[in-house]
Amino acid sequence: MKAARFYGQRDIRVDDGVSLPQVKPGQILVDIEWCGICGSDLHEYLAGTAIPTEGHPHSLTGEHLPVVMGHEFCGRVREVSAGSKLQPGQAVMVDPRLYCKTCHRCQSAQTNICTQWAFLGLSGLGGGFSEAVAVEEEMCHVLPDSIPLSHAALIEPLVVARHALKSAGVPSFDHLTILILGGGPVGLAIIFNLRARGVKRIFVSEPTQKRQKHTAVLADEVFNPLQIKVGDRCRELTDGKGVDLVFDCAGIAPGLVDGMDALRAGGTYVNVAGWEEPFVVPMGLFMMKELVLRVAMAYTDEDFREVVEEFVAGKFKGAEQMITSRILLDDVVTKGFEELVNHKDDHVKILVTPKPECLAKA
Amino acid sequence: MKAARFYGQRDIRVDDGVSLPQVKPGQILVDIEWCGICGSDLHEYLAGTAIPTEGHPHSLTGEHLPVVMGHEFCGRVREVSAGSKLQPGQAVMVDPRLYCKTCHRCQSAQTNICTQWAFLGLSGLGGGFSEAVAVEEEMCHVLPDSIPLSHAALIEPLVVARHALKSAGVPSFDHLTILILGGGPVGLAIIFNLRARGVKRIFVSEPTQKRQKHTAVLADEVFNPLQIKVGDRCRELTDGKGVDLVFDCAGIAPGLVDGMDALRAGGTYVNVAGWEEPFVVPMGLFMMKELVLRVAMAYTDEDFREVVEEFVAGKFKGAEQMITSRILLDDVVTKGFEELVNHKDDHVKILVTPKPECLAKA
Repeated sequence: MKAARFYGQRDIRVDDGVSLPQVKPGQILVDIEWCGICGSDLHEYLAGTAIPTEGHPHSLTGEHLPVVMGHEFCGRVREVSAGSKLQPGQAVMVDPRLYCKTCHRCQSAQTNICTQWAFLGLSGLGGGFSEAVAVEEEMCHVLPDSIPLSHAALIEPLVVARHALKSAGVPSFDHLTILILGGGPVGLAIIFNLRARGVKRIFVSEPTQKRQKHTAVLADEVFNPLQIKVGDRCRELTDGKGVDLVFDCAGIAPGLVDGMDALRAGGTYVNVAGWEEPFVVPMGLFMMKELVLRVAMAYTDEDFREVVEEFVAGKFKGAEQMITSRILLDDVVTKGFEELVNHKDDHVKILVTPKPECLAKA
Repeated sequence: MKAARFYGQRDIRVDDGVSLPQVKPGQILVDIEWCGICGSDLHEYLAGTAIPTEGHPHSLTGEHLPVVMGHEFCGRVREVSAGSKLQPGQAVMVDPRLYCKTCHRCQSAQTNICTQWAFLGLSGLGGGFSEAVAVEEEMCHVLPDSIPLSHAALIEPLVVARHALKSAGVPSFDHLTILILGGGPVGLAIIFNLRARGVKRIFVSEPTQKRQKHTAVLADEVFNPLQIKVGDRCRELTDGKGVDLVFDCAGIAPGLVDGMDALRAGGTYVNVAGWEEPFVVPMGLFMMKELVLRVAMAYTDEDFREVVEEFVAGKFKGAEQMITSRILLDDVVTKGFEELVNHKDDHVKILVTPKPECLAKA
């Protein structure tokens, strides 16, 4: 089969003739229809730090590069193993995490931070930028026919956002005023989650025009941090107090300072971003406002289940606006990764399919 | 009167002939008996960054250097103003904070982070390294005769520690295992506070021998971070999980890494230290364990009241072991600040008195 595999920094190749995965007991084979390109995929493409290298296989999967990439994927059941409750042809959204089930954290339902943390599409055992993948049946969420698979891959970033909301550690989102740093896919997915929670006041700080435009229809106000002082504007909008919560989906130092400046005393900053530069806390702001710093890492079984249910129930209507491009697996490097490198600001989410008929229909 | 005033970096002078403070309505004049040298005093002595300079007077006090230093002080009422409930001769512990009472934070009882944050002994209006100071009567806590003033100045660092406990944001300290970074005065004051809360398992990481010795009698285990890997040892002592809480009273980068390494997944790191170097968060640990970072800044009215009550009730018995030296105000530079610069590790807390008779009796 075809699969896009990571060989090293800026070296992803669409290989033909990759073996079709073997279905083990408890697994099913999924024919992939759509898989999104995640910011972390792009990060990996450029930096190549998380994928296990030769001589250093992943402790859980035993595999190393080249590995198939892509973890935001959905598709249809192609083959089941004995005792399966699924039927070939059924639509499924896949929770792409791999976890050991035995460590302290897995034992206490913190599977998102398993000590052997691994993901399909990153750590081996296949991934979403391919024609098919063998996955644990228990990690598959059946989708009804009412849900177009051409939208469903968005469930994964929405789950990331759901976990970020929980990581904020607030008892209730009622009456909170929230600033999101970065109007990319995770930023928008957080807005959709917050709106589903009834949050009324959401501001976004985003420097690029295209993303500002995308965000403007969803947020109450979008600031250009290159033109205004974000903290000052947030205080103007909150009787001088500042916002209650900041979600950092940007992962850059000026955003960290803006976010901590914009928070009220006792407010909470939640990092949802990957950081390529050192995370240097502005101590004056941290201390003089007694801020709380938290972080969201991936998601749990519960997060995934909740979002699938709400997605099916129509609570994320409009999320498909995040999709700015659809491409074929054959073009994943040129129209996918390189497009994001060169024209990142033109995109929110690019979806990839191995099936020309899916692209034609979408 | 005599007063030790800060003129600039490494320039504190004991001036004679400083005017006796005028008592304004609502104030009392306190004859100082004892005042401790705080780590922040030492920091100011060496760095000189917080004290308002000429041309930049403090917004709340209107004063600039030279300012009288010292904020951990107690003494006896010398003069009262009309309507006072106090009597000359009564012993008082002074809450040395100055706050505006009008900002958002003061209005919501967060007086510890008043937007015009100021302290006696740092921001003008007098301080504890002098013969007398005029203070708001409402900031004075009367002490019964049963409490020796030669111990009472320790109440202030104990209040700092109390606030740190509250800043941890945990519903209960029962069954928690706690690591303290740094066996200095604040670290020890946190141990006393934790023991008063019934905490059973307390570890301390402290590199210097003298402080290790001081700490060993109070903590369950003291590690030398230069000799062992603190995180590994903490995991050995906690069934592989790590500690629940870290209080950082050291404020150095290797401690931050050790502390975050030692924490269990979901654990909380509380910074209680002043930082002279950048606070660079080790992102791998922060993210892969979804840690929570908090900070404790000074203390509130409630913190001070609670600790005075508990101190009077005998709940901090043994805290006087923290006092490693007593000196006269005349010697505050040579036997106080310079002693701490040159022999910091020989000391926990140095107390200063302007009265030779107090030194003779102590």
